[in-house]
Amino acid sequence: MTSELIAVDWGTSRFRAYRLDGAGTVLDRVSAEDGMSTVPAGGFAAVLERHCGAWMKASPDAPVLMAGMVGARNGWAEAAYAPCPASPKSLAEALLHIDERISIVPGVIAHDETGPDVMRGEETLIFGTDVRNGLVCLPGTHSKWARVEDGVITGFATFMTGETYALYRQHSLLARLAAEPEDLTGFDDGLEAATDERGLLNRLFQARTRVLAGEMSGEKVGPYLSGLLINAEIEGAFKRYGADHLVTLVADGVLAKRYVSALRARGSAIEIIAPERAFLDGLSTLAAAR
Amino acid sequence: MTSELIAVDWGTSRFRAYRLDGAGTVLDRVSAEDGMSTVPAGGFAAVLERHCGAWMKASPDAPVLMAGMVGARNGWAEAAYAPCPASPKSLAEALLHIDERISIVPGVIAHDETGPDVMRGEETLIFGTDVRNGLVCLPGTHSKWARVEDGVITGFATFMTGETYALYRQHSLLARLAAEPEDLTGFDDGLEAATDERGLLNRLFQARTRVLAGEMSGEKVGPYLSGLLINAEIEGAFKRYGADHLVTLVADGVLAKRYVSALRARGSAIEIIAPERAFLDGLSTLAAAR
Repeated sequence: MTSELIAVDWGTSRFRAYRLDGAGTVLDRVSAEDGMSTVPAGGFAAVLERHCGAWMKASPDAPVLMAGMVGARNGWAEAAYAPCPASPKSLAEALLHIDERISIVPGVIAHDETGPDVMRGEETLIFGTDVRNGLVCLPGTHSKWARVEDGVITGFATFMTGETYALYRQHSLLARLAAEPEDLTGFDDGLEAATDERGLLNRLFQARTRVLAGEMSGEKVGPYLSGLLINAEIEGAFKRYGADHLVTLVADGVLAKRYVSALRARGSAIEIIAPERAFLDGLSTLAAAR
Repeated sequence: MTSELIAVDWGTSRFRAYRLDGAGTVLDRVSAEDGMSTVPAGGFAAVLERHCGAWMKASPDAPVLMAGMVGARNGWAEAAYAPCPASPKSLAEALLHIDERISIVPGVIAHDETGPDVMRGEETLIFGTDVRNGLVCLPGTHSKWARVEDGVITGFATFMTGETYALYRQHSLLARLAAEPEDLTGFDDGLEAATDERGLLNRLFQARTRVLAGEMSGEKVGPYLSGLLINAEIEGAFKRYGADHLVTLVADGVLAKRYVSALRARGSAIEIIAPERAFLDGLSTLAAAR
């Protein structure tokens, strides 16, 4: 049986750690604001010790496996991107070892005819989905879509969806038109508009024209924008990887709801897994693959 | 022969006026910062008098024809949008008359299955191109593409290209990566990236990845972004109206150069007309159509 594991999800803005028993059950957990961006150079070991020192003493054989931006250039140590295709085994072999006990999961870099794409942290969640063949979608500021074949990540693409939503919602002329509380039916209008051929740059402007022409309320603008961008993302991912796959969504809350309705509208088969669950299963998979 | 004409291009940020003889030759001109947004309610007549009073005295028979945001809701008086299809004759008949001498050209509103689109000011430039059949492109913050058939505007679409460029260049994570002086060869890279199927949201992110992977210099980021967005705009316009038209570009300077190279790359036949020339010929055409 596998040993205990101390699993650390160390991102830019948060530090999360879990103590897992051999069966992957969470024995204890900690979440703090010691995100990678707040830790001074050379201060990472101290932060880990402060949050997980007791666990490490109590379970001297439990390895400490970390994933996320902690392995970025400005993190604890830079874990060079592993090449795509990437499997649990290839990533386990590419672990960056801080010492004989603590290691960092590398991110993945993909090269295709159009240039490079990278992920750091998402690879762990993808391996936590147990998808053997299909598409995995991780929505967010920079949404990731990964194609998995025989349990191997064979390609992925990043979409600037969440950041683009924030740009238009906060800084564009749509910001002045958007009203609250939001009318969520605007989301479906946005989905619909995105599926035609005129293109995003026209559809974005039309949100304004619809409001000025009295055909859309300001309360619908935010959800419309969201529907427009999410559907454009899905359109791009499906054109890239094909629409005939099971889509496994690593998300929860409102974002999960929105992607589900956008994918349902296209007739996709969908599975949903919560990010924390995917992270824990992913790190356990990588630990077992060593 | 047609009479003299006082032609006023009164936009949000600038006031421009021209005194034209019966042949359309510019006898005199004025340009000031009395844009519509700076004029207090009720103050429009005084601004016109200050800049054009002498001309109006010298040529008592010359009508004063104005176009642009001066006819918007917050302008001198609201000139209701005229319906599309729109011809010089239909717009001349829909002129908003301030008095027996001064009138405002109405904007145009188009309705299609996907919703409304509007223009105010561009309609005058389009009629100044003398295009009988083809596409007219007016690049800018909110680029307009109009289809002209037998000299009539039969449809048009607005693309949020310039505003989107500014959003990403100033507020997105690309802002931190973009360096100057710009390397203009990045524009062609952007054109190329936009023509594939992955979609804008992916391509935008890839600008970042290319820089981080050392495959693109920061000096190329701005031009790349510009090429990406301009080509996405053209793609949308061609999908909408067809690519097999003569494209008449109402632009000058860098913007004209960039649209020309993007259109050339697609093999389009192109004509270019300077915005001021198009405005003057357009107002003369509308004056003659009364």
